Amino acid sequence: MRNELISLRRVMAEHGIDYYLVPTDDFHSSEYVGEHFKCRAYVSGFTGSAGTLLVGQNWAGLWTDGRYFLQAAQQLENSGTELCKSGEPGVPKLEEYLKEHLQAGNVLGFDGRTVNAAAYKSYQELAEANGASISCQVDLVGEIWTDRPPLPVTRAQELPLMLTGQTRAAKLADVRKEMEKEGADVLVMASLTDICWMLNLRGRDVECVPVILCFAAVTREKVYLFCDGDRFSESVVELLGLDGVEIHPYGEIYRFVRELESGSKVMMNLKVVNSAILDSVPEGVTVLDRIDPTELPKACKNPTEVGNFKAAHIKDGVAVTKFMRWLKKNIGKVPMTEISVAEKLEEFRSQQEGYLGPSFHPIMAWGPHGAIVHYSATEESNAEVQPKSFLLSDTGGHYMEGSTDITRTFAMGPLTDEEKWHYTLVLKGHLNLGAVVFKEGCTGANLDLLARQPLWEQGLDFNHGTGHGVGYLLNIHEGPQRIHWKSVDGAKLEPGMITSNEPGIYLEGKFGVRLENLVVVKSVQENSYGRFLKFEDLTMVPWDLDAIDATLLTEREKALLNDYHRRVRNSVMQYMTSEEAAWLRKATRAI
Amino acid sequence: MRNELISLRRVMAEHGIDYYLVPTDDFHSSEYVGEHFKCRAYVSGFTGSAGTLLVGQNWAGLWTDGRYFLQAAQQLENSGTELCKSGEPGVPKLEEYLKEHLQAGNVLGFDGRTVNAAAYKSYQELAEANGASISCQVDLVGEIWTDRPPLPVTRAQELPLMLTGQTRAAKLADVRKEMEKEGADVLVMASLTDICWMLNLRGRDVECVPVILCFAAVTREKVYLFCDGDRFSESVVELLGLDGVEIHPYGEIYRFVRELESGSKVMMNLKVVNSAILDSVPEGVTVLDRIDPTELPKACKNPTEVGNFKAAHIKDGVAVTKFMRWLKKNIGKVPMTEISVAEKLEEFRSQQEGYLGPSFHPIMAWGPHGAIVHYSATEESNAEVQPKSFLLSDTGGHYMEGSTDITRTFAMGPLTDEEKWHYTLVLKGHLNLGAVVFKEGCTGANLDLLARQPLWEQGLDFNHGTGHGVGYLLNIHEGPQRIHWKSVDGAKLEPGMITSNEPGIYLEGKFGVRLENLVVVKSVQENSYGRFLKFEDLTMVPWDLDAIDATLLTEREKALLNDYHRRVRNSVMQYMTSEEAAWLRKATRAI
Repeated sequence: MRNELISLRRVMAEHGIDYYLVPTDDFHSSEYVGEHFKCRAYVSGFTGSAGTLLVGQNWAGLWTDGRYFLQAAQQLENSGTELCKSGEPGVPKLEEYLKEHLQAGNVLGFDGRTVNAAAYKSYQELAEANGASISCQVDLVGEIWTDRPPLPVTRAQELPLMLTGQTRAAKLADVRKEMEKEGADVLVMASLTDICWMLNLRGRDVECVPVILCFAAVTREKVYLFCDGDRFSESVVELLGLDGVEIHPYGEIYRFVRELESGSKVMMNLKVVNSAILDSVPEGVTVLDRIDPTELPKACKNPTEVGNFKAAHIKDGVAVTKFMRWLKKNIGKVPMTEISVAEKLEEFRSQQEGYLGPSFHPIMAWGPHGAIVHYSATEESNAEVQPKSFLLSDTGGHYMEGSTDITRTFAMGPLTDEEKWHYTLVLKGHLNLGAVVFKEGCTGANLDLLARQPLWEQGLDFNHGTGHGVGYLLNIHEGPQRIHWKSVDGAKLEPGMITSNEPGIYLEGKFGVRLENLVVVKSVQENSYGRFLKFEDLTMVPWDLDAIDATLLTEREKALLNDYHRRVRNSVMQYMTSEEAAWLRKATRAI
Repeated sequence: MRNELISLRRVMAEHGIDYYLVPTDDFHSSEYVGEHFKCRAYVSGFTGSAGTLLVGQNWAGLWTDGRYFLQAAQQLENSGTELCKSGEPGVPKLEEYLKEHLQAGNVLGFDGRTVNAAAYKSYQELAEANGASISCQVDLVGEIWTDRPPLPVTRAQELPLMLTGQTRAAKLADVRKEMEKEGADVLVMASLTDICWMLNLRGRDVECVPVILCFAAVTREKVYLFCDGDRFSESVVELLGLDGVEIHPYGEIYRFVRELESGSKVMMNLKVVNSAILDSVPEGVTVLDRIDPTELPKACKNPTEVGNFKAAHIKDGVAVTKFMRWLKKNIGKVPMTEISVAEKLEEFRSQQEGYLGPSFHPIMAWGPHGAIVHYSATEESNAEVQPKSFLLSDTGGHYMEGSTDITRTFAMGPLTDEEKWHYTLVLKGHLNLGAVVFKEGCTGANLDLLARQPLWEQGLDFNHGTGHGVGYLLNIHEGPQRIHWKSVDGAKLEPGMITSNEPGIYLEGKFGVRLENLVVVKSVQENSYGRFLKFEDLTMVPWDLDAIDATLLTEREKALLNDYHRRVRNSVMQYMTSEEAAWLRKATRAI
């Protein structure tokens, strides 16, 4: 049994807590969290990106989803924590487990800052129904974690107008307009990406997500930015001040909320703000549960941002195209592993001006590993890349001008008919979705069919979304839009939104294919029938002609492929050496 | 000013009612209503199928939608009632009008039996907010309408098992299972089609909708059928009795509800039952607002019903194919008008065994009339069918084995390139939607894109749904499924569901094209990826090769067209004369 688990149970007993909950979240409902917040991994030993730990005095369980069953089973061995496979038949949900086991008089504890207010409310109801109570002002892991990494404090940077396309003052004016519509006196924000977007600030507090750790409160006249440390240069402090932004210590957000004036109305997103914030709201203050008014304007990139994104994608296209050619040239000659080729790609990206680092942990998966959707090569799993089968490469970078997310599946040698057939089916779906013309008002649920139809016709499918929104120097996964036929409540696709187009197919134990470009929504025309939109590809890297069975493509699909390859050539050719250029001409030849 | 309006105002004053509302509904929220219920037409003079009349002492207004602006303007001229164009800018909604004009102390009256319970609740809230009150137990139009047609009492007929595929007893057992799930002691039903489906009964109380006028209440042991008149044969009464069905007078439903036992739970759909029923529920009885448990099983036709539907569609296919050939042969030789060719088609249908009559009012529209989506030829509008342009024919029939709904757009002579181009675009959409393979769980919102994509690509669209469910010897429009990209809350498509596939295009003042088949949802295969479904065409009538520009079709679309025509030939050829057969071979030749 892990010592960390034993220690936790000791402090639980001291605090009179019967069950202690350790989620994966930081204090901001972030998708990716910094090292300081990895309490669940610290106690249980399971390091996956998703999972919730529940510790009782006699039993501990970790709930995670299908992506992590294998990894969790290995990491939890002899840890004293049992793996609970979410969604598997016969496995109760965490809430169901609590409903059954929480006794009258029991205390359920957690650090309220790591549980969002909406989830908190449902735990409260659950505890109440069982005659139990909740203790949520305790950070028990903090008490036992002696060498806990401190809260990160990285330099905050102000993005210039040529990158953001909109001043902080203009963004704040829009936010206040929305507040006025809702009749709100104060807006309390916890989403790091929304605050950084609104204030045109970036940092490096979280790996792959260039934000600073902060809360914000917007009033009619001021912005209170709760953010620790000596991270702002004098000139940034001055610029912030000119826009009415005052800097306060990170932890002061709770006192700020506690001191809200009686009779005032505070707007906050209860699915994002943590329960300690909601708990701080005094009697007499009305809470308006609304999504942050920054969500939609952040998603709809302005013309400057779109232009910058295009520039970033040409740089990224140059790097990945060079990488593709390097792979094709050296496979079978130079030793390659999943990790070593990932480093090679990072090297190509690093040569690009303004490259800041990866936008997420790379997935570089050869052969059967490609069938594991969220595969991440470790020293143990690291496979040799052999001159056959596929190398699935899902990677991305942050550049000053924008962020990229691209998946290519490369033929590393001669392919079987089965491999080519599957690659081509996925490509058909990708091309058809990419070429769709749609009415304003459509959501991703209206469009997803195009990506899946070639697979569905063969009785095949893939078990993930076809598209997610993309942040600008923020989280690579960004809402509110999504492309998935099941997401009927998804946001409407609007001009300037960037989304991925990434159908795939996964044959367990054999191989995986995923083909991903980022695309931006553009207006085509407006007439008496309405407004029509389409996608424009941002990603500029060839598809692998070695993997395509052209006899499966319709004339239209061939034309779409050739047209895309012509665009790729025109975009990246000038940055190639003459040897690379010769290869590129062949790699993008019309078929 | 119409005398009827003057009379209504007189009785309003006698009853102390300031505003009187006359909706289009019967007591059952039916789409089509019988003559007895046409109060709104009686008072206002406007005879369209949709509209709501509001009468005050100094002003009367009729709200209707875009389909009827022209007709309503003509019929309301000098009537004393003003036309309120719903959805037009600057036109308040009826509720908005009331909110503004209803004074404190005013009384808003209506016949509570003609307003569903959900709408009633919102009128109550509105009146309360204005300090006004509601009087809903008054049928003022009934007081002034001296020659009002009586409530219809037609013969009730029991459908045999070979037509329904499921006994009344089995249907009732399923209904009671759902009641048990919800903890309901009684189910009160007002939907005529649901009651008739559940009890395997049909009648002729409403034009085009072969139902009997009735309410039903299902308890654990009994069914109370509230239905007037000497319409049941002795043997039907006996058969009903064997299944625990007791017949009571139509109006007794209200007393039945008033006498529900305290502490019991009654299930009813508040969007369907009228407000007089809801008002009758005594204190101490809990209302469970649920859709009727018959809705989904009624929509998912069983194998017997599907088989019968196919048989009905072959009969209908023979009739419409003969009509098509008659048109093509006689155009320019025999005088034709919209009304005369509609009669000709009815004649062909009447020759089919088991034909019962039209399933809805036929739309037979030549040339520019085809652009009016809900056109209905009158003696005044009746156009000559000339040997050019299109004849749009949207018609359907009830047969003992099933109901049909088919739209064909016929080339009545040489067509312009513009006409062919539009016809072919619509056909592409129809063929692509008809050929889709989709995952179980998809709704029509996931699929509609296929029908619209060829139009959207050209900046064109049509302003109606692509598909509606179809009843069996009931209402030709049936829920809960629907094919429209905007219907994100539509029902999942399930095996046995029948829906129309009817894209179109309408060029005002020029022509209209609509191409409609009925299709049934079928299972293709089930494997580890899930269950896959597709559509099978029921309608068996050729598309008009004279209207198709084959150069616009892909190879796949040509194959789909040729395959459909081969199926049509195989289905109806044997019922053709040798002369007709020769024509049919040519009309369905492979292209």
